[in-house]
Amino acid sequence: MNWMDLLLDLDGYSIIGTVAFAVSGYLLGVRKHLDLLGVVIVTLLTAIGGGIIRDMLVGRMPMVFLDNTNLVVIALTVLLAWLVRLHKRENEVLTKLFIIADSIGLVAFSLAGAKLGVEFHLNAFGVILLGFVTAVGGGIVRDMMVNDVPFILHKDFYGTVSIVVAALLFVLSRFGWDHLLAVQLVFVAGVALRLLAHWGE
Amino acid sequence: MNWMDLLLDLDGYSIIGTVAFAVSGYLLGVRKHLDLLGVVIVTLLTAIGGGIIRDMLVGRMPMVFLDNTNLVVIALTVLLAWLVRLHKRENEVLTKLFIIADSIGLVAFSLAGAKLGVEFHLNAFGVILLGFVTAVGGGIVRDMMVNDVPFILHKDFYGTVSIVVAALLFVLSRFGWDHLLAVQLVFVAGVALRLLAHWGE
Amino acid sequence: MNWMDLLLDLDGYSIIGTVAFAVSGYLLGVRKHLDLLGVVIVTLLTAIGGGIIRDMLVGRMPMVFLDNTNLVVIALTVLLAWLVRLHKRENEVLTKLFIIADSIGLVAFSLAGAKLGVEFHLNAFGVILLGFVTAVGGGIVRDMMVNDVPFILHKDFYGTVSIVVAALLFVLSRFGWDHLLAVQLVFVAGVALRLLAHWGE
Repeated sequence: MNWMDLLLDLDGYSIIGTVAFAVSGYLLGVRKHLDLLGVVIVTLLTAIGGGIIRDMLVGRMPMVFLDNTNLVVIALTVLLAWLVRLHKRENEVLTKLFIIADSIGLVAFSLAGAKLGVEFHLNAFGVILLGFVTAVGGGIVRDMMVNDVPFILHKDFYGTVSIVVAALLFVLSRFGWDHLLAVQLVFVAGVALRLLAHWGE
Repeated sequence: MNWMDLLLDLDGYSIIGTVAFAVSGYLLGVRKHLDLLGVVIVTLLTAIGGGIIRDMLVGRMPMVFLDNTNLVVIALTVLLAWLVRLHKRENEVLTKLFIIADSIGLVAFSLAGAKLGVEFHLNAFGVILLGFVTAVGGGIVRDMMVNDVPFILHKDFYGTVSIVVAALLFVLSRFGWDHLLAVQLVFVAGVALRLLAHWGE
Repeated sequence: MNWMDLLLDLDGYSIIGTVAFAVSGYLLGVRKHLDLLGVVIVTLLTAIGGGIIRDMLVGRMPMVFLDNTNLVVIALTVLLAWLVRLHKRENEVLTKLFIIADSIGLVAFSLAGAKLGVEFHLNAFGVILLGFVTAVGGGIVRDMMVNDVPFILHKDFYGTVSIVVAALLFVLSRFGWDHLLAVQLVFVAGVALRLLAHWGE
């Protein structure tokens, strides 16, 4: 087991996920006709809200308060989305790309949250909840703010993927099998599961 | 004063409360036509959400991430509720049983939260808020998620019972009277108060 | 730089802000026809909710659990508001006074939150978010509870003032210019900005 390698790798996926989540928050804010500050809040909540709630749960200073990487990624993403007027476009290739990036984000964030739970020696519930909250917590708060019933309460095979992936990481860690290759297999299987569920709906 | 005995005792009540709160979350989720994951989220929020928020407030790792007792109780409760198809039944004895269990939960959770505040040497507000949040915080977040105005903002003599009970524990602790017998008297008085309020409405 | 002097000073402003925020919460609760407990919850959330969320974010015990000053201020404010039946009055002088007090509160709370971020050596995002959450976090949770879309998502130049003020404090602290006079200039400029924005709308 070499968490360092894993971290480096998952970070790559996490950045793709951050991009996808920032885009999804940006589109929602614009389509709800929020003003500039509203769009910024909704975008940040979607992209980093889950990580902040996760850090609050385990009682550590939110990572995003100390490290600027994600913030720069989000700023560039939103700037680009705005420059290409993404909220006015709709085409199939773009939609597919977005779904794939969002699935990568979902699974990468779930694994990152679950990993933290494993490092804190939490029980299965704690590991799964941290994975779940990291991946979907920001979106839930966002939906609560703009008065939607959280998507997660209606979109069945989205949150479930997060739970399955985090549960697998927990099981792997209990058996000492959580080395890089195994985790990457879980990652690929999770993304495949989400995409199959999406296109099978 | 022997907190250990008290803890053992309150735990007994807390388990009855956890059962009642899990049932109430389960019924709400089913009646709102949520999918399986939605029902699980709403049930968990109702039964353990308050305790998690309380632990976040005082900055400690949520107990439910380390100890499985409550989770097993909730799983068995929901399984049983589903097996007997509780959401399709309505009869008077069941309703009465449920009200009594819910009142026991309300008071036991309030005392457990307030006790933590006393142990941290908080002021009256802190002790009362921890009691209140433990007892009704999960239900508030649940109602916010499914877009109801939280029941607590409309159902007067529910949250008030939690506040009265926690305030009594604070006063007892200030005078050094918070031994087992006194706390149990507060417990009985709290449950009686809630039941009188309910049947007097 | 003498944080102690600054603290003493900002505390004076913070108390005016607490009064204004308590009044605003009280009026909202009464106008929404909440019962007594509902009005108390909404008032407390508006006046101290932001500070509690800020303390949860940085993982420290909420100050209001240890110190009674703000609670006494809020209790006296609400008592007075109720005695003069403030919720039945509407006149221009009162409205102007309220706007000024609310602007002072907004800026004082933003500076107090940002100051905490500077003390924890957070990045610009952390400093700004702590300022923002301290000033408007309670109001956001309150609006989410009573099912309004948070005012902050619609009222542009309110949250923006909080962000500008906190960002200025961050810049000052980076250059070592965050002594009392500079911070007081930021305070005055922030209040002026908010009032100009309000009366220019």
